Amino acid sequence: MSKTESRGPLYHVLRAQQFDRALLDRLCDLTTRIRKVAKVKEGADYLQSLLSNKRAILYFTQPSTRTFLSFQNACHILGIRTSEIRDPSTSSEYKGESPEDAIRTFSSYVDVIIMRSPIAGFADRTAAMLDETDRPVPVINAGSGKDQHPTQALLDIYTLYRSFKDRGGIDGKTIAMVGDLARGRTVRSLSYLMKNYRGVRLIFVAPPSRRMGDDIKGFLDKMGIPWKETEDLAGILPEVDAVYMTRLQDEYDEAGESKKIDYDKFAFRPEHLEILPETAIVMHPLPRRNELHPGVDKDPRAKYWRQERNGMWMRVAILAAIFGIEKDILDPYGRSSHV
Amino acid sequence: MSKTESRGPLYHVLRAQQFDRALLDRLCDLTTRIRKVAKVKEGADYLQSLLSNKRAILYFTQPSTRTFLSFQNACHILGIRTSEIRDPSTSSEYKGESPEDAIRTFSSYVDVIIMRSPIAGFADRTAAMLDETDRPVPVINAGSGKDQHPTQALLDIYTLYRSFKDRGGIDGKTIAMVGDLARGRTVRSLSYLMKNYRGVRLIFVAPPSRRMGDDIKGFLDKMGIPWKETEDLAGILPEVDAVYMTRLQDEYDEAGESKKIDYDKFAFRPEHLEILPETAIVMHPLPRRNELHPGVDKDPRAKYWRQERNGMWMRVAILAAIFGIEKDILDPYGRSSHV
Amino acid sequence: MSKTESRGPLYHVLRAQQFDRALLDRLCDLTTRIRKVAKVKEGADYLQSLLSNKRAILYFTQPSTRTFLSFQNACHILGIRTSEIRDPSTSSEYKGESPEDAIRTFSSYVDVIIMRSPIAGFADRTAAMLDETDRPVPVINAGSGKDQHPTQALLDIYTLYRSFKDRGGIDGKTIAMVGDLARGRTVRSLSYLMKNYRGVRLIFVAPPSRRMGDDIKGFLDKMGIPWKETEDLAGILPEVDAVYMTRLQDEYDEAGESKKIDYDKFAFRPEHLEILPETAIVMHPLPRRNELHPGVDKDPRAKYWRQERNGMWMRVAILAAIFGIEKDILDPYGRSSHV
Repeated sequence: MSKTESRGPLYHVLRAQQFDRALLDRLCDLTTRIRKVAKVKEGADYLQSLLSNKRAILYFTQPSTRTFLSFQNACHILGIRTSEIRDPSTSSEYKGESPEDAIRTFSSYVDVIIMRSPIAGFADRTAAMLDETDRPVPVINAGSGKDQHPTQALLDIYTLYRSFKDRGGIDGKTIAMVGDLARGRTVRSLSYLMKNYRGVRLIFVAPPSRRMGDDIKGFLDKMGIPWKETEDLAGILPEVDAVYMTRLQDEYDEAGESKKIDYDKFAFRPEHLEILPETAIVMHPLPRRNELHPGVDKDPRAKYWRQERNGMWMRVAILAAIFGIEKDILDPYGRSSHV
Repeated sequence: MSKTESRGPLYHVLRAQQFDRALLDRLCDLTTRIRKVAKVKEGADYLQSLLSNKRAILYFTQPSTRTFLSFQNACHILGIRTSEIRDPSTSSEYKGESPEDAIRTFSSYVDVIIMRSPIAGFADRTAAMLDETDRPVPVINAGSGKDQHPTQALLDIYTLYRSFKDRGGIDGKTIAMVGDLARGRTVRSLSYLMKNYRGVRLIFVAPPSRRMGDDIKGFLDKMGIPWKETEDLAGILPEVDAVYMTRLQDEYDEAGESKKIDYDKFAFRPEHLEILPETAIVMHPLPRRNELHPGVDKDPRAKYWRQERNGMWMRVAILAAIFGIEKDILDPYGRSSHV
Repeated sequence: MSKTESRGPLYHVLRAQQFDRALLDRLCDLTTRIRKVAKVKEGADYLQSLLSNKRAILYFTQPSTRTFLSFQNACHILGIRTSEIRDPSTSSEYKGESPEDAIRTFSSYVDVIIMRSPIAGFADRTAAMLDETDRPVPVINAGSGKDQHPTQALLDIYTLYRSFKDRGGIDGKTIAMVGDLARGRTVRSLSYLMKNYRGVRLIFVAPPSRRMGDDIKGFLDKMGIPWKETEDLAGILPEVDAVYMTRLQDEYDEAGESKKIDYDKFAFRPEHLEILPETAIVMHPLPRRNELHPGVDKDPRAKYWRQERNGMWMRVAILAAIFGIEKDILDPYGRSSHV
């Protein structure tokens, strides 16, 4: 039996596309259960006992404080001890070591690698390299360049799932994505994942120079997912179930081209709350700038702070699935005896 | 019932002035008890079990290794898992996020924020901001500019309390504060806290350009606390119960003005031990330079290394009070069954 | 009774020379036992319970990611909580504090200091300074300049011990050391430790300008350990039990003098596997460059990745010995009741 055959439903977490509906539902259910178990001290202590024998390394050669903290605290919730590399210059690569050798070294002390890198495809290459060794460990992609950030897509799904759980779930919902859709990694991943849900409709609200890419539109057409495109945010708000705001991705600018865009037209402000349906929600992957006014924060439909915290809980669920402890958390028998 | 009403005796720890005599005594008793419980492994394990479900973030955008380590180890003693931000440049603020949003994000993963900032009032503003949210967490001020460093004042109080516990406590004692009293944050906070003790007398020994501020002197007059001022260290040593040495705060110099001061007159050297009463103690907030000679270290009256370690234990007590586990530590019933 | 008298068999770990045969064998046995106990969750949890009341500081003012991670994870395996100083500029030394005061401060929060410094002898001086205080803690030298790196030598011994455990142990073996032997700290320490084994023979394979130092050769002669010297790697491979490869230590170059060396002659490549005995092993302290071809990695005789991981396990054993919990791990009674 090969190493791959003996693995559970989740091993490496590399790209959003690897998650099908069954796995998404399972992770969402698990996340909800984990949140509830953690609410009381006995439950929190039980969760920490489950992976108390595991150690993780957070290998973040591209800085990202929020993703780092979200994963680190997710590890802590399950009792996983963490080590970290946040500054590539502290690595022994200065002695001429290859990146592959460096990562294999770090992997030798731990049970899982959570990695963020500015290089597209680096997590995939690391996973493939480790799979060839005597002691492979799972790799979780916490963002690889402009390429993939699968756990962000999963936390977005969970936020939709949780918000719509008394309204038939994500199926049948209309979701508007607003802003710099050409460069936004999160909205692209989320669009891909929509293929797993029935009757979903997408509305893209973007400046002409930042429209959603043709690759995504082609994918949606192929999957039979209806979509439309507009620049009129106020015009479409009355018909949405969720509006997903995104910031201008000007860090990818080559010559300040983002400055020419009138982004005020793609900002959500308190006056928009009046035309947003009572049951709709407002999301944002954060950090935000002017495109989402703080005056919206206290409206019950604003879900972005909860979305942030959902990220930590979903990452707990991912780790639980990787290490095969889903049953210990979900099983009613385990529940009654331990929690 | 508001969030504030449901809180225990200690929630945010922002400034020395918020502590009255009852709370000071309570924290000092708790600190002593914690030190004793931690001495044996069963006790240490019991303490760690009390807050094993809590997570803290140490948000230190002003570097301070000793305060950082003191708090981090205090967390560990109670089983609190820690995350940290020590370098503001790793924050996502580079993406244009407001400091308020950044801190709200970090707070969303944890149960308490311990923050040190170069900006006066920043901890207060953070606490007020979080209090307005759905999920406030307590904020501990670990130093905010020249403004406040309340836990340092508390550890000084505890060092006095512990040193004088067989001599009637802090009440009635004569305390000399020596050095750069104009700029020293610790001596200023400690002077304020003296209002909580009866019959205390203060002696300020400082160079003319660095005398204790008129605001403090006015406060002492109003509170009826006698004080006097001198430049003659040797002259007052025979009458003190405690001598609190401080270093020259030349990091606040604008044009090297500290170089003109003859600070040798405000240094404690081995020969001073001969005129210091047998029951008196020597304190220093550390780090020290020439104002406190290492030749004093082995004298039993030198308490500054113990003072350093007291800081960690007092911070454990503060965390215990914030999370409402004082009774679990003090209660004789809990004591007999757990420790 | 002095502090020194009450100490166990291991307190400060400062230099390779302090380990005699009995202690080496004991640490190797303990390491093997720890590896086995940690394989199942109950055993791993038991190990973590043993030092759950201890705290360590990793004081690494000379960067070394691999040694840092190896020690940090070793601490975690025994339940020791860790703090760290990795950047000397975050220390309060900027306020004019002496290095001795800084370290005494850090020591006051923890139970053991693991230190790496660019300054030869710094760990020794720290240990001596702390021994003079009221609250000494053990110091582990994790590398001090070109001087000593004792735990690296111990993990090399353990790798040899483990590899030869069914072939009579290290006694009687022929070990070739290859490369920049003049500057390599690891091969020098390992040579010293060979005095503890009977019938060992050493072969030094080095470029003329990088031969093993006369001090080591003199030591071997005095101890009656036979050695020879050659530049012909292929020529000696058929007669070795272990070949220990090392990289060119060009970080100590003053004017690029290493560039003149034809290091290809001192590289191990896949073709060498054909002439290496079936029972022999290949070691390397890592990181590697061209002197050890990745094409060798999958050969069962390649032990350097295991050697890396052995380092973590040996460091667990060292910590266990320092804190006197060897019996809790080795004792069959403890074994049956806890694991």
